[in-house]
Amino acid sequence: MLHSFLLIGQSNAAGRGLLEEAKPLDTRERRLRVLRNGRWQEMFRPVNPDRVFSGTCLAESFAREYSVAHPDVQVGIIPCADGGTKIEQWLPGEVLFDNAVNQARLAMRTSTLKGILWHQGEGDCLPEYIELYFDRFRTVMDTLRAELGMPELPVIVGGLGDFLVGYDKKPTIGIYYPEINAVLRRIGEEYPHCAFVSAEGLTANPDNLHFSADALEKFGVRYYKAYEPFYRDDATEPTATQGELSELELL
Amino acid sequence: MLHSFLLIGQSNAAGRGLLEEAKPLDTRERRLRVLRNGRWQEMFRPVNPDRVFSGTCLAESFAREYSVAHPDVQVGIIPCADGGTKIEQWLPGEVLFDNAVNQARLAMRTSTLKGILWHQGEGDCLPEYIELYFDRFRTVMDTLRAELGMPELPVIVGGLGDFLVGYDKKPTIGIYYPEINAVLRRIGEEYPHCAFVSAEGLTANPDNLHFSADALEKFGVRYYKAYEPFYRDDATEPTATQGELSELELL
Repeated sequence: MLHSFLLIGQSNAAGRGLLEEAKPLDTRERRLRVLRNGRWQEMFRPVNPDRVFSGTCLAESFAREYSVAHPDVQVGIIPCADGGTKIEQWLPGEVLFDNAVNQARLAMRTSTLKGILWHQGEGDCLPEYIELYFDRFRTVMDTLRAELGMPELPVIVGGLGDFLVGYDKKPTIGIYYPEINAVLRRIGEEYPHCAFVSAEGLTANPDNLHFSADALEKFGVRYYKAYEPFYRDDATEPTATQGELSELELL
Repeated sequence: MLHSFLLIGQSNAAGRGLLEEAKPLDTRERRLRVLRNGRWQEMFRPVNPDRVFSGTCLAESFAREYSVAHPDVQVGIIPCADGGTKIEQWLPGEVLFDNAVNQARLAMRTSTLKGILWHQGEGDCLPEYIELYFDRFRTVMDTLRAELGMPELPVIVGGLGDFLVGYDKKPTIGIYYPEINAVLRRIGEEYPHCAFVSAEGLTANPDNLHFSADALEKFGVRYYKAYEPFYRDDATEPTATQGELSELELL
């Protein structure tokens, strides 16, 4: 049995934790998985290979925590996050949205989709975007849940890091990120089957834009704690299991 | 304008060229691209990240040669190859087939699909598979072309390496690979809009299973030479262009 989670958002969802700073990935005796070409592989880094500099991500420790709490299942991540993207690029009909639906549907053939992990907002740090953010988020998630036939699929959203105040390449991010955080917090309170996870106290890479490997390790644990109350044992079973990989498939 | 190619097959399509043996990737001033999440990024390794040990692939030098011959376009690879897979895992309705269709369709929104690069067969080195191979290949490619609305889409297929005779982990591969090569060669002669590329003289990694980085560099050039006669200037234009990536999307 495999429980899966869709990972979407921008670079801090994809993960830019520096590989040389990260602890080795513990795949819990191959129980942690990642989707590749619609099939489950033993999890490996980078989990979400959207860019050449993709690194560790919060889904790693999230999946580990989930696997500790659910020792009888495999846990698989469906990596669809894409760096630097605004929420308008995630609206239904956009390529990122459609890719996420495609990937989740392929994953659902051999797993039970249990939730969505969302981290995004740095790209929307301007007043005209901030006022539209909640509505856009609702449109994205309502439609995603509808397309996947899971109207109560839990969504966990994470806050932006306070280190952004020191991000000098695009000063509007440092100015407006607290307003996005306020919207994200409100989403966690008001949007159904959703929770907000604070990024308080988490550190950044030297770029002051991306969570560090250490921060992502902690953030994934927070995501799991926020997810836990939503866990239900009544999800639809997949139509098939993937089966064991052949010897050749491991080469 | 972006011309794209779908890369499918098993591990020698995905590419296992050792990164430490490979020359740096020349992306021709960012004209070589790779699809990630349905969007075009500057090409980076591994182009086809199906496994943790994925390496260089033949599509790199193929795309470079194409870009030399067509200096006015970008060239994008749609990486959907999956290591160790048999051709029956590529039949219509299978997850690998459906993933390839999904990815190609997303790519076609912002590119003109110009061909399919196929390398596969090591997984089918048994008499009962060999006799079905041509028919299965026909079913895969006929259906793929139909699903993509391009009945004359060129398909280039490459032969298996003679080093397989020394692959001792699964001796049936060393025994039967010449028979698969005979079928692949016949496919190149008899299947419409298709050509066969010999792997003669190409070297392997120490595993005697995978083409070396040097071999893949040469193999991609051979693939391009085999593709060249199929080039037509009459392909359908995509409905949109992706547009430039924002500063944040490059981080």
